[in-house]
Amino acid sequence: MKVVRLQTPDGIVYGVPDTDGIHVYQGSPFVAWEETEAVVPYEQARLLAPVFPTKIVGVGKNYAAHAAEMQSDVPTEPIIFLKPATALTGPGGPIVLPAVSSEVHHEAELAVVIGTVARNVAAEEAEKVIFGYTVANDVTARDLQRKDGQWTRAKGFDTFCPLGPAIDTEIDPSEGLAVISRVNGEVRQDGSTADMVFDVPTLIEFITGVMTLLPGDVILTGTPPGVGPIVPGDHVEVEVERLGVLMNPVVGP
Amino acid sequence: MKVVRLQTPDGIVYGVPDTDGIHVYQGSPFVAWEETEAVVPYEQARLLAPVFPTKIVGVGKNYAAHAAEMQSDVPTEPIIFLKPATALTGPGGPIVLPAVSSEVHHEAELAVVIGTVARNVAAEEAEKVIFGYTVANDVTARDLQRKDGQWTRAKGFDTFCPLGPAIDTEIDPSEGLAVISRVNGEVRQDGSTADMVFDVPTLIEFITGVMTLLPGDVILTGTPPGVGPIVPGDHVEVEVERLGVLMNPVVGP
Repeated sequence: MKVVRLQTPDGIVYGVPDTDGIHVYQGSPFVAWEETEAVVPYEQARLLAPVFPTKIVGVGKNYAAHAAEMQSDVPTEPIIFLKPATALTGPGGPIVLPAVSSEVHHEAELAVVIGTVARNVAAEEAEKVIFGYTVANDVTARDLQRKDGQWTRAKGFDTFCPLGPAIDTEIDPSEGLAVISRVNGEVRQDGSTADMVFDVPTLIEFITGVMTLLPGDVILTGTPPGVGPIVPGDHVEVEVERLGVLMNPVVGP
Repeated sequence: MKVVRLQTPDGIVYGVPDTDGIHVYQGSPFVAWEETEAVVPYEQARLLAPVFPTKIVGVGKNYAAHAAEMQSDVPTEPIIFLKPATALTGPGGPIVLPAVSSEVHHEAELAVVIGTVARNVAAEEAEKVIFGYTVANDVTARDLQRKDGQWTRAKGFDTFCPLGPAIDTEIDPSEGLAVISRVNGEVRQDGSTADMVFDVPTLIEFITGVMTLLPGDVILTGTPPGVGPIVPGDHVEVEVERLGVLMNPVVGP
């Protein structure tokens, strides 16, 4: 099943895409939901980020070749950080570059969406707390990341977390899914989830050993090598194999 | 006015303390609320953290003497970080020390609670977006903070953000309020909000220039010098002048 979230004239709703359009649901898949009669045709659908979580947990340097391009060692434990939910934007939403940075990078990532309250979950049990997967762009102001030391500002600007288009509840990334970014059609990153330093179950064990994850919470699993700058006028696509393409235009301050 | 949040047999509600007990409200002060007939006697009130925000923004090294005791320079711009809302605990809630740390510190802080959607707010206008103030303990695993570089894990454990007891909507900290911590009755920190490197309006301008703050969001304004370890069996009190005392017992893993 694929799950999307969309803006309608009657408010924000969850929906499930089908051949005739997006079937609108009442409620939320994270608590309780029910199909309604309404179907939104694809050409009218205004997709949002597929969830508004209580937290977005990022993982730094989770691909060895990206750690190397950042002149960093490969971490021996996951390095976690948080992005605010206000950074979310949906498919097609502009990434707005802030005036205080002159070096903003794309970072293509697989995102995990949590389905249940999850605390101290062993890696072997991790699958049970996953609702599904989607595509993320962990947009980062590289100059501010270096300057601040802490990554919160560099990764926390409004629109710095494109997410979507849909949550897929059936995919298994452990087999290795391609994680790709393109800027104006040119491939910049082309990695595989098989190359993560810490795989998804290991990340869930580590993170839930620190903080309780709540339904809808999102984990960004790190980016493969090839990160680089985006500038106003660019169109950035992030694709994760079988999860679709997340495209966002870039605009100036 | 003072605002609290409490657990009742009928669910979580907001309330306003008065001489006869806590007057229960329907709804939330951040959207719309209305007084009910119910009054909870003080001896029966189970207070929670007074808000469950979409984000908690912390500010590092915002007192020069604390920066010095951390062998750090005083920052030239605010250093911001995020704590997850799952770290919140209310007055009297235990601080649970994690097994992976052997050096957990208290950090007494003034907390700002935001009242409206706030984006690009100039310092001169900051007062308009403040709902009120409360007391926080920015509990930090100092060893993990050093080890990780990023502070998210060190500051993000469940129960590492005691908050409360009440939000005060009338206080003005710019005159200088004492910020005190005591462990088992012994004073450990005794600073003043007048000594902040960046005052509350400046922090609001800086943070809202990065990320939109939403009603109920919390800013932790930094800690004065005197931070130190807490161990199982300790009782930690944080007091901010005129805002009351936040007491939490410390328990082992």
